[in-house]
Amino acid sequence: MITRMILHIEYDGTAYSGYQLQTDQPSIQGEIENALKKLYREAIRVHASGRTDAGVHAKYQIVHFDPPCTLQNLNLKAALNTLLPKDIRVINTAIGNKDFHARFSARERQYQYIISTQNTALDRDRVWQIYQELDFDSMKKSADLFIGEHDFTSFCSVQAEVDHKRCTIFKSYWEQHGDRLIYRIHGNRFLHSMVRSLVGTMAEVGKGRLTVEDLKNILESEDRSSGAITAPPQGLTLMYVQYEEKINWEG
Amino acid sequence: MITRMILHIEYDGTAYSGYQLQTDQPSIQGEIENALKKLYREAIRVHASGRTDAGVHAKYQIVHFDPPCTLQNLNLKAALNTLLPKDIRVINTAIGNKDFHARFSARERQYQYIISTQNTALDRDRVWQIYQELDFDSMKKSADLFIGEHDFTSFCSVQAEVDHKRCTIFKSYWEQHGDRLIYRIHGNRFLHSMVRSLVGTMAEVGKGRLTVEDLKNILESEDRSSGAITAPPQGLTLMYVQYEEKINWEG
Repeated sequence: MITRMILHIEYDGTAYSGYQLQTDQPSIQGEIENALKKLYREAIRVHASGRTDAGVHAKYQIVHFDPPCTLQNLNLKAALNTLLPKDIRVINTAIGNKDFHARFSARERQYQYIISTQNTALDRDRVWQIYQELDFDSMKKSADLFIGEHDFTSFCSVQAEVDHKRCTIFKSYWEQHGDRLIYRIHGNRFLHSMVRSLVGTMAEVGKGRLTVEDLKNILESEDRSSGAITAPPQGLTLMYVQYEEKINWEG
Repeated sequence: MITRMILHIEYDGTAYSGYQLQTDQPSIQGEIENALKKLYREAIRVHASGRTDAGVHAKYQIVHFDPPCTLQNLNLKAALNTLLPKDIRVINTAIGNKDFHARFSARERQYQYIISTQNTALDRDRVWQIYQELDFDSMKKSADLFIGEHDFTSFCSVQAEVDHKRCTIFKSYWEQHGDRLIYRIHGNRFLHSMVRSLVGTMAEVGKGRLTVEDLKNILESEDRSSGAITAPPQGLTLMYVQYEEKINWEG
């Protein structure tokens, strides 16, 4: 008897109010639960590695659920992809141990944020378009400040309901590819709108409105009202989630 | 007095019936002409390097037009980008000589077509998703057959109204990047739906339904009904157009 299924999901967040289930707006969780309900003919709750905000994308989001029964000859991936909208795809499926939890077993999350310094029609829902010269060296120095364990209160939405705001950042760096500035951050956990706040504030440094020293002071103040700016959602993508144990994907 | 303006345009073709002006459906040309009419308060005809079909994109489309007057202190790029929908962007502008023609002065067009062998939500409007094993070596051999001057009647829509169907192909090759197979083709001219027909038929070879020899026979038959298959539009992007003389971009 299969007790827990794991799904690797990719989604385009543009049309959704975010990952989390909403009563009156489309959400990624809502679409997945709707598809599972059609398949199993019963309400099923799914659990994700974490929430993503409205307009934020995922290349690698992990969700788990407990199927109420075993459907004979089921190709779960193909069946769900028939039922899901085209902007949400099941990339792979796996059978999980009962103690696997998409959120609590995760050890590391990896995000990517893309800034385009050029206009773009094709990637308009995938990048933040900034049409001004940015001081990229200062942005790179800013990114270094976040590595290690810090209290990220200054870069966290006040709505966040968590018992503490300390996160350990393993990697935090910028890369340049032509007119694209790509920020990558790997950490054990992320607070509500944290990556967007880090990027938005680093962009202020790039624009010359803040210095690297100002950014350091904002971080150390542990105070949301100390000046952090939130970048728009469409540049952000959840790229990978690492678990304690390797997931045995079927595909 | 400025007599001819050149625009580098990028567009997402998903929402349009194609480049060419249509009376009752949205088109790229229609949107550009609408924006120019708002700016100059008079109907203006634009000329492009070539047409693209419904759902086909352009990273680098070139259009020219003759402004009826000189608007003082005009930032043409910024003004048009304010008036155009977000899926059509002016990337750059240039002043052209009176004998520059977006179509007739072009010497080379470069296209890219992307096949994804994996499901994708994020790139669903940018790739052709094929969920089966493809014989990539045979596809690479197929691409070699098109290099040089050939009559492409077999790979051209019967609707095409041109005096001859000979095209010179300078480059034609496939590259693999992870689960993406990328086809690049450079040629002096392309016929209606030609790149999509080449790709669709090479995919038949990849699927094992045709051999490389079959493809060669289709090419040499110079007959549209000899078996070419047209690939879907969303994988195709016009990447570059090369002119006799270098364009002096303003940005």
